[in-house]
Amino acid sequence: MTAPTERTRLKRLHEYGSHDKAVIHAILDAMPVAHVGYVMHGAPIVTPTLQWREGDRVYWHGSAASRMLEESEDMPVSLTVTLIDGLVLARSGFNHSINYRSAMLFGKAEKVTDAAVKTRHLETFMEQILPGRWPTLRPMSAKELKATTILTIPIDEASAKVTTGMPKDDEEDYAFPVWAGVVPVSFSIRAPESDPRNLPGLDIPTHAKGYRIG
Amino acid sequence: MTAPTERTRLKRLHEYGSHDKAVIHAILDAMPVAHVGYVMHGAPIVTPTLQWREGDRVYWHGSAASRMLEESEDMPVSLTVTLIDGLVLARSGFNHSINYRSAMLFGKAEKVTDAAVKTRHLETFMEQILPGRWPTLRPMSAKELKATTILTIPIDEASAKVTTGMPKDDEEDYAFPVWAGVVPVSFSIRAPESDPRNLPGLDIPTHAKGYRIG
Repeated sequence: MTAPTERTRLKRLHEYGSHDKAVIHAILDAMPVAHVGYVMHGAPIVTPTLQWREGDRVYWHGSAASRMLEESEDMPVSLTVTLIDGLVLARSGFNHSINYRSAMLFGKAEKVTDAAVKTRHLETFMEQILPGRWPTLRPMSAKELKATTILTIPIDEASAKVTTGMPKDDEEDYAFPVWAGVVPVSFSIRAPESDPRNLPGLDIPTHAKGYRIG
Repeated sequence: MTAPTERTRLKRLHEYGSHDKAVIHAILDAMPVAHVGYVMHGAPIVTPTLQWREGDRVYWHGSAASRMLEESEDMPVSLTVTLIDGLVLARSGFNHSINYRSAMLFGKAEKVTDAAVKTRHLETFMEQILPGRWPTLRPMSAKELKATTILTIPIDEASAKVTTGMPKDDEEDYAFPVWAGVVPVSFSIRAPESDPRNLPGLDIPTHAKGYRIG
C-alpha cells in the first residue's frame, strides 16, 4: 500500500469540521496548552506543551535536553488544542457528547536555531499571554536560550471541529421522558497569589489580574 | 539501532514525575477528556477523546466508522490527560511555567468486542460521570452498540507529572524587583441549561447539577 500524502490522509480522516483559518486561529489563540504527538521508534508519544501562534505558524518550546524534541526535527508531528465548552446530556446514551472546540494540526517540525530569532519568538509568546511582562523580567541569558528548543509548523494541514448547542437526539427520542440539556464548562481564573518571597512593595500587575483562557 | 522496548523508552523519556498508581488514577478520574495519539502511515495523529478508568485499565470509545480507531487495534497508542492548575509567573522568562497534573499512558490498544461487555463498560462510564442517569435513558440499541468501538489499554506503562506551588527561580533572581506568583486556573461548571425540546415537568437531575471536572 502506498503511503498517502499527509494532506490526503488528513482529508480522509478528518472530513468533519472546518478548514477555516479564522476558526483554527481563534482556537489556538484561546488556549495555550496543546497536546503534541511525536513518533519515537514507531510508537506515539503525546505530551502537554505550551503553544503560541504567530501569523500562519504555530510554535512550541521545551528543553534542549529533551531527546524527543531534538529528534523530532523534520519529523511529522501532530499538534492538537482542545477547549471543553459543555457536557451534552441526551435522551440516549449514544447521543451524549461534549461541546468543544478543537484544532488539529499536522506538519514536519522545524527548529528555530538563530539566537536573536529565538529571543524574539519567546518575547512574542510571553507578550501574548502576559502583555507588558517581558521587559520587566530578568533578561534571558545565552545559556538559557541555548537550553531552550523552539519548534514550529505552518498552520497548513489543519482542521477545526466546533460543536455547540443542545443534544442532537434521534427524532423519536424527543418523546422519551428524560431531562436533556447542556452543563456548561469553562475555565475559571482566580485572583493571583503572590510569591511569599516577593520583594516588598511589588503590586500584582495588570497582566496577572487580567489573564484569561478560553 | 535496535528499537528499545516501550518500557525502556518510557523510562528514558519520562524520568520526571511519578509512577505512583494512586496519583495516575486520580488524574484520570478527575478529567474525562484525554488526548490519544495514534500512528498512521508513520505520522502521529492526536485526537481529543473521552476516557474513563475501570480499575487498572483505561477505556475510550468512538465511532466504529473511524478507520483510525479500527486500525489502531493491537497498535501502540499514547493516552495523555492534563489538568491545568495555574500559570506560574517567575522572575525570568525561562522559569515561567504552568502548574499542571498530567498522566501519560502507553500501550497496545485492545478492542472490546462482546456486546454485553461493551454495554457494561458504557454504563460504567456514564455512571462515573453522571450517577443514576443510565437507567433513565432510552436504552442502547444493538445498532448503536455495533456503531461504537471501545478500546482499552492497561494502566501499566504510565507516568504522572504534577507541578504545584510558587515559581522555582534561580536563587540570585529573588533579588530582582518583579512581581512573581501564581494565577490559579480551574474548571468552572455553570448551571445546567435545559433543552427547549424537553417534555414538560422534567426537573434538572442531581447528576447534572453536581457535575464537576478537576
